[in-house]
Amino acid sequence: MPDTHASGFAYPNLFGKKVPAPAPRWGGNAKYNFIGGHNDRELIPIEGLIEATASVLRREGRELALYSLAQGPQGYIGLRKFVADKLGRWRGIKGSPDDVLITSGSGQAIDLINQVLLEPGDTVILEEFTYQGYLNKLKRLGVNMVSAPLDDDGIRIDALGSILADLKAKGVTPKYICTTATIQNPTGSIMPLDRRKQLLALAAEYGVPIFEDECYSDLTWGAIDAPPALYALDPKRVVHIGSFSKTLAPALRLGYVMADWEFMSRMVAIKTSGDSGTGALEQMVVAEYFSKHFEDHVNALSKQLQGKLDTMVEAVEREFGTHVEMWKPKGGIFLWMKLPDEIDVRKLVQPTLKAGVAFNPGPEWAVDGDAAKSRLRLCFGLTTRQEIEEGVALFAKVCYEETGIPPQSGNVRR
Amino acid sequence: MPDTHASGFAYPNLFGKKVPAPAPRWGGNAKYNFIGGHNDRELIPIEGLIEATASVLRREGRELALYSLAQGPQGYIGLRKFVADKLGRWRGIKGSPDDVLITSGSGQAIDLINQVLLEPGDTVILEEFTYQGYLNKLKRLGVNMVSAPLDDDGIRIDALGSILADLKAKGVTPKYICTTATIQNPTGSIMPLDRRKQLLALAAEYGVPIFEDECYSDLTWGAIDAPPALYALDPKRVVHIGSFSKTLAPALRLGYVMADWEFMSRMVAIKTSGDSGTGALEQMVVAEYFSKHFEDHVNALSKQLQGKLDTMVEAVEREFGTHVEMWKPKGGIFLWMKLPDEIDVRKLVQPTLKAGVAFNPGPEWAVDGDAAKSRLRLCFGLTTRQEIEEGVALFAKVCYEETGIPPQSGNVRR
Repeated sequence: MPDTHASGFAYPNLFGKKVPAPAPRWGGNAKYNFIGGHNDRELIPIEGLIEATASVLRREGRELALYSLAQGPQGYIGLRKFVADKLGRWRGIKGSPDDVLITSGSGQAIDLINQVLLEPGDTVILEEFTYQGYLNKLKRLGVNMVSAPLDDDGIRIDALGSILADLKAKGVTPKYICTTATIQNPTGSIMPLDRRKQLLALAAEYGVPIFEDECYSDLTWGAIDAPPALYALDPKRVVHIGSFSKTLAPALRLGYVMADWEFMSRMVAIKTSGDSGTGALEQMVVAEYFSKHFEDHVNALSKQLQGKLDTMVEAVEREFGTHVEMWKPKGGIFLWMKLPDEIDVRKLVQPTLKAGVAFNPGPEWAVDGDAAKSRLRLCFGLTTRQEIEEGVALFAKVCYEETGIPPQSGNVRR
Repeated sequence: MPDTHASGFAYPNLFGKKVPAPAPRWGGNAKYNFIGGHNDRELIPIEGLIEATASVLRREGRELALYSLAQGPQGYIGLRKFVADKLGRWRGIKGSPDDVLITSGSGQAIDLINQVLLEPGDTVILEEFTYQGYLNKLKRLGVNMVSAPLDDDGIRIDALGSILADLKAKGVTPKYICTTATIQNPTGSIMPLDRRKQLLALAAEYGVPIFEDECYSDLTWGAIDAPPALYALDPKRVVHIGSFSKTLAPALRLGYVMADWEFMSRMVAIKTSGDSGTGALEQMVVAEYFSKHFEDHVNALSKQLQGKLDTMVEAVEREFGTHVEMWKPKGGIFLWMKLPDEIDVRKLVQPTLKAGVAFNPGPEWAVDGDAAKSRLRLCFGLTTRQEIEEGVALFAKVCYEETGIPPQSGNVRR
């Protein structure tokens, strides 16, 4: 009989050469958790979701017996209708449910776009500071990343023009320009309409598609009217993705893509060969709830987030004073900031974590990591106002202990 | 301004070289749908799921605000507890929730196992007739597939011994032996305990792990006691996967893996880099419902399926008589059968579909497709008894029209 008492899996010698290092056992979240894209616990609409579940299951629940509810690989028709309708009303996009693909989180949407377009050695253009998920996925794919500088209105058109011209001179056509034009991640800017048109004209001139990620665009805090989505302005040259993680709940895994069918049909083929559909219960419940309550829910959430941002900005100003530069966002859940050049925030990760504070170091949110060594991102979605105040004070205290900045004036400061 | 009126996505020239052919628009399911692994509409526990949703959301719903409910990448602890407990009671497996990884369908579990072990050019051993999903995934990975012959008790040990010896003589160590030992897909056999022990001894002798897929093992129709899972007998040499698609609903996307941590930790690392968790609402609802109702639900489902199988076997006997050989399954949702050698079932797919009947041709469920050209698989999970009778009669009629088999005796037959 085989020996079942040997320690560990018997054949680690058979692991593939590219297998990653083992994951650690899960260690829990920090008390003052400013990382990632968590949401506000108080704003999860428990009773609304329960009511939506009862309603949609009594009407259509028997169809759960069929893969993808027998509605095909693009997803639950009720959710595709909601997405097409919402994007029409909120983002100026003309489209039908047939133009929508529901994905298992926007992460799957990113993977599908990459799988349609990218091969190792290809080049893409990204915003200089951008979502860590893009960077990690592109590194694994062996793709060259070119950084496009940002200002307070998003990608700088002059700089992008030079980049495209340089690449063209080298015979390189980038596979896409990736932008979070509406609530830039992490700076929180919104690209004005004029610049959107300039961006599209430049992309068309050089024959490069735009990959537009609007994961945060529903959280523009009511008062601010964002210009139409890039996809609304040029649907043949833009692939558009979004998510329900930020507007409802990140533990649900639902995102979506809108794209021309010539592009979409390739994504559908890849998705079908890789999974057997996106979770239908979550699709049904979200469609049912948001078809009735989207506007109310997002307005309440935006108001709550805006208040938390104010608390965080005040706390950072109080604790760091002139030793910090902040990009005050026009929506979303993140505050992006810069400490003095002599501070490398990567060296603060472990000491702050030990004190119970977790933050995202800038280098993980930048195409050129070293150049972002003094920057960091704080999420204000999850923590309460009191936790924001306590956590930022604790962060400043550890920062001072490690770097001497910001100076603490003894019993004058708290 | 860019021209938005051109037809189709503007840059198909930028698609990667390996992009698949476009998916067709979804065309719906056949009326008599005997393909895939759909379930029984009547057995979806609508009110039970509604009640479970209300209960679990009121207790833990606020945690949906955090990615993976702040419980880490292995999944919702309530579902991991249920899986560990069920596998202990039903399959003889000793393990804790820490040994369980919840996946987005068992398809993701298969992908993770492949990603830990496989590189292009590697060799794996599969049952000669087996799940189409394995074959498609392995083809895409460029892996050599070796076919292990089956009899009524699963993989033939004598044949497997010869295969392993031959491969060893060539210097090849297969990366795994893949088996659906408990309700073989598609033949429906259950491997007896003695043979399980022989299989494990042989695998240990040659240093090859076992990949055990028990997607159907909960549907052994009550009266039949299956021997313990292979994983229960040798947890260091076996990786075990299962699913909720067959016991509850395939439109939910939930599967699981049990494996030694040395293997599991690599799967967790790969999963974390690829997604942001498995849908939490579906995990919560299934855990809540099955923690109370698993046995009752599975018993009712098994009884229903057994009745439908009887109807299908009778219908096939009535329509095909001596012109068909059937493997009567010991559980699950499939009937595997063989028509006379002169019939190539691939040529029947389109004509039967035109008549409203969909079936799975044997070549798509076989390592050696051509050798299975006269075989086919019918799923009896979805269709009603009346639909089974009508659909099988229609199938026989089209088969006769296309091949002259089975002979139809005019107005004597219906």
